[in-house]
Amino acid sequence: MMYRYIRQAVPKVDIKEKVTGKAKYGGDLKFDGMLYARTVYSKHPHARILNIDTSAAEKIPGVVTVLTVKDIPGSNTLFGGFHVLTGDKVRFIGDGVALVVAKDPAIADKARKAVKVKYEPLPAVFTIDEALAEDAPQIHESAEGNIIDNSRHCLIKGDVEAGFAEADIIIERTYETQFVEHAYIEPEAVVAVPDPIEKFITIYGSIQNPFSVRGNVADALGWNMSQVRVVQSTLGGTFGGKDESAMVLSARAAVAAFLTGRPVKIVLSREESMLESSKRHPYRFNFKVGVKKDGRITAMETVVIAQGGGYNNKAQFTNWRASIHATGPYRVPNIKTEVFGVYTNTIYGGAMRGFSSPQCIFAVESLMDEIAEELGLDPLKIREINALRPGDTTPSSQPLGPGAIPAPLLKMLKDVTEKTDFLRKREEYSKTNTGPIKRGIGLAVAFRGAGLGGEALDATGAMVSIQADGSVTIISGLTENGQGLKTVHSQIVAETLGISMDRIVYPNVDTTIIPDGGPTVASRGTMIGGKAMVMAAEEVKGKLLQVAGEMLNCNPSELVIENERIYSTSNPELSTTYMEVVEKARSIGVMLAALSWFSPGVADLDHHTNQGEAFPTYVWGVVVAEVEVDTETGKVEVVKVTSAHDVGTAVNPENIKGQVYGGIVMAQGMGVLEEMEVEDGFVKSLNLDEYLIPTAMDIPEMDVMIVETDDSFGPYGAKSVGEPSTEIPAAAIANAIAHATGKRIRNLPCNLERVLLGHKLTRKGVRK
Amino acid sequence: MMYRYIRQAVPKVDIKEKVTGKAKYGGDLKFDGMLYARTVYSKHPHARILNIDTSAAEKIPGVVTVLTVKDIPGSNTLFGGFHVLTGDKVRFIGDGVALVVAKDPAIADKARKAVKVKYEPLPAVFTIDEALAEDAPQIHESAEGNIIDNSRHCLIKGDVEAGFAEADIIIERTYETQFVEHAYIEPEAVVAVPDPIEKFITIYGSIQNPFSVRGNVADALGWNMSQVRVVQSTLGGTFGGKDESAMVLSARAAVAAFLTGRPVKIVLSREESMLESSKRHPYRFNFKVGVKKDGRITAMETVVIAQGGGYNNKAQFTNWRASIHATGPYRVPNIKTEVFGVYTNTIYGGAMRGFSSPQCIFAVESLMDEIAEELGLDPLKIREINALRPGDTTPSSQPLGPGAIPAPLLKMLKDVTEKTDFLRKREEYSKTNTGPIKRGIGLAVAFRGAGLGGEALDATGAMVSIQADGSVTIISGLTENGQGLKTVHSQIVAETLGISMDRIVYPNVDTTIIPDGGPTVASRGTMIGGKAMVMAAEEVKGKLLQVAGEMLNCNPSELVIENERIYSTSNPELSTTYMEVVEKARSIGVMLAALSWFSPGVADLDHHTNQGEAFPTYVWGVVVAEVEVDTETGKVEVVKVTSAHDVGTAVNPENIKGQVYGGIVMAQGMGVLEEMEVEDGFVKSLNLDEYLIPTAMDIPEMDVMIVETDDSFGPYGAKSVGEPSTEIPAAAIANAIAHATGKRIRNLPCNLERVLLGHKLTRKGVRK
Repeated sequence: MMYRYIRQAVPKVDIKEKVTGKAKYGGDLKFDGMLYARTVYSKHPHARILNIDTSAAEKIPGVVTVLTVKDIPGSNTLFGGFHVLTGDKVRFIGDGVALVVAKDPAIADKARKAVKVKYEPLPAVFTIDEALAEDAPQIHESAEGNIIDNSRHCLIKGDVEAGFAEADIIIERTYETQFVEHAYIEPEAVVAVPDPIEKFITIYGSIQNPFSVRGNVADALGWNMSQVRVVQSTLGGTFGGKDESAMVLSARAAVAAFLTGRPVKIVLSREESMLESSKRHPYRFNFKVGVKKDGRITAMETVVIAQGGGYNNKAQFTNWRASIHATGPYRVPNIKTEVFGVYTNTIYGGAMRGFSSPQCIFAVESLMDEIAEELGLDPLKIREINALRPGDTTPSSQPLGPGAIPAPLLKMLKDVTEKTDFLRKREEYSKTNTGPIKRGIGLAVAFRGAGLGGEALDATGAMVSIQADGSVTIISGLTENGQGLKTVHSQIVAETLGISMDRIVYPNVDTTIIPDGGPTVASRGTMIGGKAMVMAAEEVKGKLLQVAGEMLNCNPSELVIENERIYSTSNPELSTTYMEVVEKARSIGVMLAALSWFSPGVADLDHHTNQGEAFPTYVWGVVVAEVEVDTETGKVEVVKVTSAHDVGTAVNPENIKGQVYGGIVMAQGMGVLEEMEVEDGFVKSLNLDEYLIPTAMDIPEMDVMIVETDDSFGPYGAKSVGEPSTEIPAAAIANAIAHATGKRIRNLPCNLERVLLGHKLTRKGVRK
Repeated sequence: MMYRYIRQAVPKVDIKEKVTGKAKYGGDLKFDGMLYARTVYSKHPHARILNIDTSAAEKIPGVVTVLTVKDIPGSNTLFGGFHVLTGDKVRFIGDGVALVVAKDPAIADKARKAVKVKYEPLPAVFTIDEALAEDAPQIHESAEGNIIDNSRHCLIKGDVEAGFAEADIIIERTYETQFVEHAYIEPEAVVAVPDPIEKFITIYGSIQNPFSVRGNVADALGWNMSQVRVVQSTLGGTFGGKDESAMVLSARAAVAAFLTGRPVKIVLSREESMLESSKRHPYRFNFKVGVKKDGRITAMETVVIAQGGGYNNKAQFTNWRASIHATGPYRVPNIKTEVFGVYTNTIYGGAMRGFSSPQCIFAVESLMDEIAEELGLDPLKIREINALRPGDTTPSSQPLGPGAIPAPLLKMLKDVTEKTDFLRKREEYSKTNTGPIKRGIGLAVAFRGAGLGGEALDATGAMVSIQADGSVTIISGLTENGQGLKTVHSQIVAETLGISMDRIVYPNVDTTIIPDGGPTVASRGTMIGGKAMVMAAEEVKGKLLQVAGEMLNCNPSELVIENERIYSTSNPELSTTYMEVVEKARSIGVMLAALSWFSPGVADLDHHTNQGEAFPTYVWGVVVAEVEVDTETGKVEVVKVTSAHDVGTAVNPENIKGQVYGGIVMAQGMGVLEEMEVEDGFVKSLNLDEYLIPTAMDIPEMDVMIVETDDSFGPYGAKSVGEPSTEIPAAAIANAIAHATGKRIRNLPCNLERVLLGHKLTRKGVRK
């Protein structure tokens, strides 16, 4: 199909303001009479608060007020059990116990040291094993032991015992992952501006999910949602992270603004951001797999445990996704997967780009390589034998194409391994790796359920509105996080309406304008949000054609719009222009605007077994990584990553490449560098000098292969690539390292120590 | 019909913020780095600009820049021929020739005196006669003489010559009205805030018609409409006035903000407001009427001339309305009405509450009394004989009820004259008026076309959106001007949804949110805007019932919502609650929001004769005024006004009373006090010390009679009262004065001089 904007690498619509430094981020916002607030954090990972004495701090000149739990007008408990300010007991060192509000941020910073908090330290748990020990101290009184509420999910397909009985070999392995920081370039920043009108407040800031912030701020104030307006400012990265922290900070700022009657700003330092915000959950996978000698998997039994940290963060959702994806994109006839999460007195896990799949893929793709080793097969062969293909069903028993969900994995495996010369290089490196610098090449594959699926109801709206001068305002409830959502939506609307993209104006999310479209997560932007955009644009286009039909005295169904020209397909001379129709519509009172709503509906899924329609469709990916390992220093150089992704239709190929480049580098960090090290509940690396993320010097050569498939679900057939791009490379890198060194590391990251000392090294900061 | 909110006197939803002084008006707004601008006004009513020297002003410390016509980046000519800054020649003394932008308003004020403008004065015209003189200097080169473009409208019904031939008596009379100031309590204030992002600007301010401001600001900047956002701040009165002036000031502030890159505020002083903003047009009516001896009118021929002032203001629209209403609500079989407007080098006429009808009603209702006098009939009798009634057709030949548009005038005449004891008092005063203080009682009636009718396409949208916590955001493109629009719309939405009004939140108009709903004029708020609200709420209610039907396993058509309870009419035990349905809808992905659009469509009207459907419906009014005239001082005391209005359904009786109270007092000002006196193009009364409006001490006893009629057009049968309430009382007061004194004043206002010296006094400020 020939398109004018779809499949075109149009520049990002918001790129100019960003590269010129003109974009306003949360920290740039200023309001008349604005105050600054800073949080007093806990000094203990687990302790009862006996007393908070704010009197000394309040006396410091410039301090306006110091808030504690007793000042919260509404509910102090927010989504996930977080508190606006912790009053009873602290559960991790990022808990905020008081908020100092001052005329100047430096005064607020200084004054918080004068807040005296008396604690009674409590025994604490820092690891999964400690949390599950029989006599473990309980972190949340209402929970069942230290198991996170609603975090248990199972997938049961076939009969796993029968599957093991059929097997020639049984293999058991354990894999573990680490706390990973989002490391967005812009730390959290929010400003709450009280209205002079009674009981109305506006929150501006670096917020990923304005609607959840709205609800929680309303709760904290004891107001209703419509009294709270959340307007997103330009986001300097979020990756899932500006969620709980943005919610808590917004609630603190809102309460302070309400009580002082003045705008209140909170901007986190890098250390505070790393302390207070969510991380990628550490996961532990215990696999038992049955395999035939020919490589066919007969059964997989898996216990997956997420380390949640101090609060009921997103583990209930990440675990559901893990239950579907833990056994990979393989034709396993008998599956039993059990996933749950535990509380620990540590920093907490939450949403992070991939949402448990990078952990699952590292584990199952390491396992696949280990099965291949056991059977003497190569990594490609074991995957070719077991890969899901048309005619198969997913672990949830969803049928795959032809005529159903596309399943291009085998073809992608072939294309990527051929392009990377995978088998030849693998063989060659095995032979030539005689010196201290060893080369390796690794493979990993994945499929990913698109959108929220059975995790939660997936639905979002869009508004498309043509103005009198032909310019077009488009509005979504989803946020531009730097991923290119505004660009892709603008392309989609311009394509559908047959108009120039220059006409489109796309303001940031404002919760008073558009219905709650859910969070901007799960790679929903293009696929779900874009679909709503198509629907709204189609409705407006229908109105345009209706009016044009009246003008041209012909049936609207025979009219098309192309390059702002509207003409009859049966008589192309019969034509008019977009602007003429806009003016005519206005003169006869036709509204050229529409509000759409798209939802795939409630997933038809048995939640006890997770059998049924887990997701409306899936995307597929294949990654090959090449590494050089210095076995004398343990340093891993990632030389090249080739990343192939099935995106349905590539709405904007350059934007997709941008997503994949970023995804690879983020995965590289998880694979070889990054770990939030926690020791006795305290984080050892609270800034980017100690917490190492890849720099420009570390970035490998990257080859992005965009795969298009014929999938009718999304807008113009588009699916997603935001999360897929970052979920596979760490697994491929780990497999490449194992290939290079001959030693398998089963705990991420594959950092210097583990490469040197091997996989038996216990996790950093884990006692015993 | 029993309602929970309709027909209830609920308090205004925005009353608290207003009475506590917390509401933010345009003048209250502050932004970081804000500059202040003031305009350099013309020194001549008509002159060519030879040179503008800004150099001295620019050197004054604190002055940031001084703008003239050469600085306007886009079109300097705005709607109606107004200029952002006048460059070629000034046409009245309110023309702005330069804009001084400074750090402080006092500096800007001082600096504008240093701007040196060299003029070549031109011959000027100040009156209708001067404008129409054969050798009159032409004000606008493009116009036909001094006739305002598009201002000519005719109504032709029957054969007026045949009608005169049938008549027993022919009566000819001329009536004139004056320039009237809106005198809103809050003078104009706007702030333009440039976005750090390239080419986007937000205008906040005291703006009646945000969408027209948006379009004109975009033109002035040479941008498209979507690059301009207009957000209405709380309005301290407008009455039609904050339209052209708000447009011009917004364009000036926007250009200054764009060029300086900083927020720019313009707040007018009272003098500037009275100088620069529009007024109620002076009209001259030349009537020729044929009457039978029994009182029946056989024909009316009318020439109506509006004095427009320096620019092509709203005369083209007010004149169209005048063409329909000039002959009153009477069964006149033969009509020929011609209306046009002329330019003069004076302050300009524009929209003002009533929009030409107060002028028409003063004229035709004076005429009716004069006809009665000629025939020896009383004022009630002449109206009873000629009043339109069911079975008649309007001057536009629209049929009146039964089964068509209600026509309750005869009944209202009876009710009001009985309640006021009109005939008895009239007789009594005629007998007892022997001293210098004379009492009089007068009657006036009217009908009024509802909405824009054939004047322009009438259409507006509404958005109703239920949030997750059950609160409801409602959005309109129409503005709350103090008239109670937000209250009435909230009542309508709460009634339709069957929910508590407390759930509703209603933000001010923001042009990025809602499609252009046209101007908030023509008493459209309840009738047109409210209808759009009903439509949106009905759509949302349909979704609620659909979900409830699924929950209760019954047909949604048998469900009703009352007091947030949803139950089956066939089995009332089968029920659920609003909140349960909201939560369910959310869980299954049903969007509880709707965007509606209401338009009565293009009026089916012959624009040469104005025969056809001039308006979708009409409202009717009857007013009786009682006065005491001190014939030694000329002072008129308005003792009591009884005002009856057909509102269809009274959505909020107290709000209607509020409207009528204000309308009566405004009409009292026009009737006996107010006149913007213009002498040789200069205004003599530029502040409220000289321009007298009624004070609390002047206000008469007021009796408001709310009349309900069965009219299906508007929401819940509601029509309008905003303008009707102010269009009739001046006529009734003038008739009462004539009754008291026995002398008829045919030029408004009936001020001290005219009451003392009689109607032959020429208009103040008119030469010769």
